[in-house]
Amino acid sequence: MPERDLQYLAELAAQLRVDSVRAAAEAGSGHPTSSMSAADLMAVLFACHLSYDFDHPDDPANDQLIFSKGHASPLLYSLYKAAGVIDDEELLSFRRRGSRLEGHPTPRLPWVDVATGSLGQGLPVGVGVAMAGRLERLPYRVWVLCGDSELAEGSVWEAAEHAGAEGLANLTAIVDVNRLGQRGPTRHGWDTGAYARRFGAFGWHTIEIDGHDPGQIDYALNDACNTRRRPTVILAKTRKGEGVLEVENREGAHGKALKDPDKAVAELGGVRDVHVEVRKPVPGATPYRFAATGIQVPAYSVGDQVSTRTAYGEALKALGAARGDVVALDGEVADSTKTQTFAEEFPERFFEMYIAEQLLVAAAVGMQVRGWKPYAATFAAFLTRAHDFIRMAGVSGASIRLVGSHAGVAIGEDGPSQMGLEDLAMLRTTYGSTVLYPCDANQTAALLSEMADLDGVSYLRTTRGDTPVIYEPGERFPVGGSRVLRQNPGDRATVVAAGVTVHEALAAADELRASDIPVGVIDLYSIKPVDAAALIQAATTTGNLITVEDHRAEGGLGDAVSDAVSELGPRVVKLAVTDLPGSATPREQLSDAGIDHTAIVAAVKRLL
Amino acid sequence: MPERDLQYLAELAAQLRVDSVRAAAEAGSGHPTSSMSAADLMAVLFACHLSYDFDHPDDPANDQLIFSKGHASPLLYSLYKAAGVIDDEELLSFRRRGSRLEGHPTPRLPWVDVATGSLGQGLPVGVGVAMAGRLERLPYRVWVLCGDSELAEGSVWEAAEHAGAEGLANLTAIVDVNRLGQRGPTRHGWDTGAYARRFGAFGWHTIEIDGHDPGQIDYALNDACNTRRRPTVILAKTRKGEGVLEVENREGAHGKALKDPDKAVAELGGVRDVHVEVRKPVPGATPYRFAATGIQVPAYSVGDQVSTRTAYGEALKALGAARGDVVALDGEVADSTKTQTFAEEFPERFFEMYIAEQLLVAAAVGMQVRGWKPYAATFAAFLTRAHDFIRMAGVSGASIRLVGSHAGVAIGEDGPSQMGLEDLAMLRTTYGSTVLYPCDANQTAALLSEMADLDGVSYLRTTRGDTPVIYEPGERFPVGGSRVLRQNPGDRATVVAAGVTVHEALAAADELRASDIPVGVIDLYSIKPVDAAALIQAATTTGNLITVEDHRAEGGLGDAVSDAVSELGPRVVKLAVTDLPGSATPREQLSDAGIDHTAIVAAVKRLL
Repeated sequence: MPERDLQYLAELAAQLRVDSVRAAAEAGSGHPTSSMSAADLMAVLFACHLSYDFDHPDDPANDQLIFSKGHASPLLYSLYKAAGVIDDEELLSFRRRGSRLEGHPTPRLPWVDVATGSLGQGLPVGVGVAMAGRLERLPYRVWVLCGDSELAEGSVWEAAEHAGAEGLANLTAIVDVNRLGQRGPTRHGWDTGAYARRFGAFGWHTIEIDGHDPGQIDYALNDACNTRRRPTVILAKTRKGEGVLEVENREGAHGKALKDPDKAVAELGGVRDVHVEVRKPVPGATPYRFAATGIQVPAYSVGDQVSTRTAYGEALKALGAARGDVVALDGEVADSTKTQTFAEEFPERFFEMYIAEQLLVAAAVGMQVRGWKPYAATFAAFLTRAHDFIRMAGVSGASIRLVGSHAGVAIGEDGPSQMGLEDLAMLRTTYGSTVLYPCDANQTAALLSEMADLDGVSYLRTTRGDTPVIYEPGERFPVGGSRVLRQNPGDRATVVAAGVTVHEALAAADELRASDIPVGVIDLYSIKPVDAAALIQAATTTGNLITVEDHRAEGGLGDAVSDAVSELGPRVVKLAVTDLPGSATPREQLSDAGIDHTAIVAAVKRLL
Repeated sequence: MPERDLQYLAELAAQLRVDSVRAAAEAGSGHPTSSMSAADLMAVLFACHLSYDFDHPDDPANDQLIFSKGHASPLLYSLYKAAGVIDDEELLSFRRRGSRLEGHPTPRLPWVDVATGSLGQGLPVGVGVAMAGRLERLPYRVWVLCGDSELAEGSVWEAAEHAGAEGLANLTAIVDVNRLGQRGPTRHGWDTGAYARRFGAFGWHTIEIDGHDPGQIDYALNDACNTRRRPTVILAKTRKGEGVLEVENREGAHGKALKDPDKAVAELGGVRDVHVEVRKPVPGATPYRFAATGIQVPAYSVGDQVSTRTAYGEALKALGAARGDVVALDGEVADSTKTQTFAEEFPERFFEMYIAEQLLVAAAVGMQVRGWKPYAATFAAFLTRAHDFIRMAGVSGASIRLVGSHAGVAIGEDGPSQMGLEDLAMLRTTYGSTVLYPCDANQTAALLSEMADLDGVSYLRTTRGDTPVIYEPGERFPVGGSRVLRQNPGDRATVVAAGVTVHEALAAADELRASDIPVGVIDLYSIKPVDAAALIQAATTTGNLITVEDHRAEGGLGDAVSDAVSELGPRVVKLAVTDLPGSATPREQLSDAGIDHTAIVAAVKRLL
C-alpha cells in the first residue's frame, strides 16, 4: 500500500477517534474507548473494501455491515459523518432524546438493518444475511464487527458451527481483540491464537493481525474476500482507547466519556475534515426469488380429526407454492413441528439449523433483512432458548414468523421439559408482536397465510394432538379478531378459550346447557392484538368471564382478557396451568391441570 | 479387562437394552433407540467407575451423574433397576400418570438432581456441580451423558469454554455419538474427530472410542479419572438402536416404542436378572464451607439517594459475611450490577462466568445441587438469554437467586437493547418462582436476605439510578407482602407501584391531594407471590386501581394486580411501557413512557 494511502487511512482513523470522543463527551456517556480500538479496522474497511451505496440503502447489491459490538456506536456514527450522510451537528446529538443516534444502533437509521447492543447476536444474524446472499445469487459480502468479550456467548459458536459447516465464504467476522471487557481483562486477553484455534476447529479461515496497522488490515480484508468455501475471521489485536494516554489499554475506562475530551482531541491531532468515499456496488442487481407455482390451500372437512401442527405443515407448503419469498427454518424437529411437509416440497428453501434455537431465530432475522419471509419453527418450549433474540427482533422491527409446536400440557407423556407453558407470555411481551393460537386445521391454514404479510414478530402456536375441525375451509380469521361460537340471550357467563381449550369450552357449554345454565363461548385465536370489542361486549352482557388456557396463569390468554376488560370491571375467573405436571395422557393432563370441560363446568357453577 | 468381566458387562448392557425396550413398549412411547446406543457406556460407568451410594443420595461424597440427553430416560431407569433401587413393576410404570418415571428425568426421583429434556443443559449444569466440587475440596466426579445432536447448542460451548479454561478435571462428558438426530443424520455424523477438534480447541482432553466396546469404554473412563488440570470428553461412536435389526442405525426410529418388542427382546437374548453393584464412596466426607464472620447489614438514612443496585451489592457482601454458603456469579457486568462489592470482599466465592448468561444460570443451578446459595446477576434484559435455563430450573425445583439490574426505561440513554422490560413477565411464568422489586436501599437489603432461604427460583429486580430512601433501616418486608404508603378514608383510587414508580406514585399522590383528590399508594415490592389481601382491600375501598410499572404492559405488575382482584371486578387502569423507547435521560424516559407522576395524575383524573 502506498505511503500516501497509509497516511490517509491514519488521518481517517484519527478523525473517527476524535469524533467518537467528541460525541461521547457531548452526551456525557457512551463508549468512546471501545470505538477507538476498532477505528483503524473500520477506516480501512470503509475506504478500501466496503461496497455500499449510502444514497440507496435498499440496493440489493450493497454489502451488509453489522456492528455486533453495538456499544461502539460512536465509531459507527463517526463513520457515517466521514461518509457524508450525517453532519457534525447530528453527530453531537448522540444519545439525546429524539436523536436517531441512539446509545446502541437501531434501524431508526436507514443504514442499520438490525438493532445490536445485546452481545453475541451480530454474528448469528450475519449468518442469516449470508445464507440469503447465497440464495439470491448476489456477490454482496457480510461484515460483522465483533468484540472479544462477546465471543463467550454460546450463540457465537452456534453461528461459527453453521457458517463453517456450510462454508459461508461471503461472511467475515472482524474481531476487535482489545483485551478489556467491561469489568476487567477478558478470559483470553490478547491471545488471538486461542480464538483462532476455536474458529479454526469450526472450519473457519483465521487471520491474526495487528489491528492498528492499516497494511495488515487491508491484507486481511483482501484475504477474506479471496477465500473460497470458508468464512473468515480476522482476529485483530488492538488497544482499547488507542491514541489517548488517559484511557489507552487501561482498566476502568469502559463505557464512559473521557474526563478531558479537549486534551484527548488535541492528543489525537485535533478535529479534521476527512471524507471517506465508499465504493458503490454495480447497479442493477436483482436478487433471485423462487417462482410461484400457484396455491392450493389445504382444506379440511368439519368433523375430521387433524392436529394444527399438521395443518401448519400443509399450509406452509401451499404458501411456498403461492409465494417465492417464503423460506422455512428448523431446529432439528421438522418431523414433529411438520415443517417437514414444506421441506420435502421445497428442499432449496428449507434450512436445517440443527438444535440451536438462538441461531434459528437469528438466521430468520438475517433473512428478513433481505426481504425473505422466514418461518422458523421448533417446540414452543424451546423458543424460550431464543428469548433474547426475539426481544431484539422486536427492537429491530424484524418481520419474522415463529411457530411453536407441542404447546401446553396437552402433549401428554413427555412431561414438563417439553411443554410450552410460557410461550404466550414471552411472545406477548415482545414489542410489536402478533400472537395467534388456532384451534382447528382450517383456522391454522388461514392464520398462517395472514402471517406472511405481517410486520414485526409474529407467532403461531400449534398443538401436538388431533383436534376436531370446527370451521369450514376458506373462512377468514383476521388478526385481532375472535369467533363467537356460542351465544344465547340468557348467557350467564362467557368462556374465553383458544387452541385446545376451545373444544373443552364447547363441551362444557353443552354440559351446562343440559343443566339449564347457558354460557357463551369465544374462540380468542388472536391473543395479541386481542379483540377487545368482543370481550367488552361479552363482559357487558354476561358480567362474568371464564378464561381457560393450556399455559401458565401468568402473561397468557387470561391476562390478555383481563387487560382488555380491566377498565370495565367484570368478574374474570382464570383457569390455567398452576402446578408442575408430570407424565400422563393428554386427557389426564388437561384434567389434572384443571383446564378441561369438567373444570370449566365447575368454575362456572362456582362463579354463579 | 478379564474375559469374565467383559461377559458380565455385555450381559448388563443387554439387560439395559431389553429393559429400555420393555419400558417404552409398555408406555407405548419414549426413546428406546436413544437408550440402546448408550447402554454399553452406562453399563461400564455403573459397574466400574461410578461412586454412588443409592441408599444415601445426599452423601456429599457421591459422584454426580447428569443425563443431559434426558430422552434416554428408559436407560436411566433400567440402570436404577439393575442397581436394585426400583423394581420391574415400577420400571413398567414408565410415563404413566403418577409414576416417578417420567418421560424425561426430574428430581421427583431421589437420585436425579436436575431435570433434563431441554438439550444442551446438562453440561453447563455439570460445570456448576464441578465448580462446587473444587470449592468443597471433595474428590467426587461429575459425569454428564450427552447426545451428539445437542452439541449444536451454544450453551454446550459456553460450558466447554469455562470448563476448559478453568481446568475442571473432575468433569467428564460422555458423548453418545449415534449419528442420528430426531429427523435424520446429525451434521457431523460419526466424525468424532470434528467434535474432538472443537473440544480440543477449548482446552479439553479428548478421547475417541468405539462406544460398544467395554474395554475401550473402561480405558476411556479410567483415562478421564487420571487426567489432571483438564476436563475430559469421551466421544463414543455408537449405533442408535444397537442390538435390534428393526431399528439399528436406521432413520425414522427416533422417539418411538419398537413395533415388535417381544421379537426385539428375544433378539437381545431375552429378559435377564443382572445386578450391578455400584461402588459406594468412602463415608464421612464433609464439604468445605466458608466461615461466617458476622453480619453488618447495611443501613441507609431516610432521604438519602442510593440506587437499589448499590444496596444489593452491599447487602450481598453483608450476607456473605453472615453465611458461609453464599456464592455469587457474574456475567461480566459486576461493576454495573454491583456484585463487585461482594467480589472484592470474597474473591474465592465470586465466579466470573463472562458474557455467557445461559452458563451463568446453569452454573448457579449446579452449585445449588451441592447446597450452596448462589446469587447470579446480570442486566435484567440479558437474563432473557437464559430463559430456557430458568424455565428448567423451575422444573428442577432448583433454589437459585437471580438479580437483574438496569430494569426498565429508567436506565436512560443506553436505549432499548439494555432495558429490562420483559423480565417480570418471564420470571412470573417460571414455576414456583418468587419475584421481588424493591424501591429503596433498605428494602433491597431486607429482601436480599429473605431470598437466601427461599425455595425455587427467586428474582430481585434492581434499578440503575439513585432513588430516595423511604424506609427506616431494619424494617421487615416479608415475601408476599406489600406496604401501604398512603391511605386516607376518602381515597378515590389506589395507585399500585413498585421500584422506581413508587416514587412517581408518591409524587402523584401529593399533587392530587393538592387538587383535593386523595388517593392511596401501595408499594407492591412482592410481585409474586402477590399480596392479594391488600389489593382486594384497596379495590373494595376505592373501587379503582391504577397500576404503574417500568415494564411492558404484558405479564408484569399490572397483570399481577388484575389477576389478584379479577374475581372481584374493580376497575383497573394499567400504566406501562407500550412504545419502543429510544435514547433519552431517565426522567425523559419515564415521561415519554407515560409512567411518571404526571401520567399517574392524568390517569387518575381521567378515571374519576
